[in-house]
Amino acid sequence: MKRTIAGMAFSLACLMNLSEAQTINHDKVEMENGKNTGMCVKLPMQPDGIVRLSKIEVHAEYLEEYVKYAIEVGEISLRTEPGVLTMYAVAEKDNACRITILETYASQKAYKSHIASAHFQKYKQETLHMVKALVLSDQTPLNPSNSITNIIK
Amino acid sequence: MKRTIAGMAFSLACLMNLSEAQTINHDKVEMENGKNTGMCVKLPMQPDGIVRLSKIEVHAEYLEEYVKYAIEVGEISLRTEPGVLTMYAVAEKDNACRITILETYASQKAYKSHIASAHFQKYKQETLHMVKALVLSDQTPLNPSNSITNIIK
Repeated sequence: MKRTIAGMAFSLACLMNLSEAQTINHDKVEMENGKNTGMCVKLPMQPDGIVRLSKIEVHAEYLEEYVKYAIEVGEISLRTEPGVLTMYAVAEKDNACRITILETYASQKAYKSHIASAHFQKYKQETLHMVKALVLSDQTPLNPSNSITNIIK
Repeated sequence: MKRTIAGMAFSLACLMNLSEAQTINHDKVEMENGKNTGMCVKLPMQPDGIVRLSKIEVHAEYLEEYVKYAIEVGEISLRTEPGVLTMYAVAEKDNACRITILETYASQKAYKSHIASAHFQKYKQETLHMVKALVLSDQTPLNPSNSITNIIK
């Protein structure tokens, strides 16, 4: 029952992030090895998709709090947004204030939908004063045959 | 028949990279959505595993040649090494000479096996003069529930 309600909530959240032009069935959730991952079915990467390394430096006194917000926005985005294909965040072992996020969006439209979402706006506003530096560095994959799938367990 | 020979070659390559303590059946290859990816079955991530961002700056005059070597070593490593979990390379859109590779190894042993391999040694020796700068930056994933799978199609 709990899973069914969670599934309905994801489906609803997915539908809220869908434009009228996107016709994938979001009643479905991603499967991995036959198991429900609790994530929306993802849109395919489009020619105007984005592969990005976001490099963030956090003021040390806010690090713990910042990480909570970053984990929250990453989880909600991956679970509910069909066009958010990866959001994989890592922190340097030698300086945990230096965070890099591999962000992949299926299209410009998917990216615009993401930054307009309530969960992203909450993260952005609540963490503004915690961020010392931010570089958004768009990237081109070296090998088109090499692909990454990002799952939240 | 071609697929069978390729499968045998992958299995053999996998076995050559296996230590006696690693008992996973490498006659199998990874499956995604029921399709053979042409990759070894991967080892699970261990507590001493490595998540790394390798940041490479290439001398512009060698960029095209360097990229060929980088793609080759990435493909062979992903296809044949059970302990190479990701090797996902991207280049900055604004400066293609700046390359970042997300490298994930299942254990220290898997990493040592990788850097001792003939394909890595070939890449390393042949590209030494092409590399202007190299930073190996070990990382900690922010969210243990968030995982990445890397596939070569």
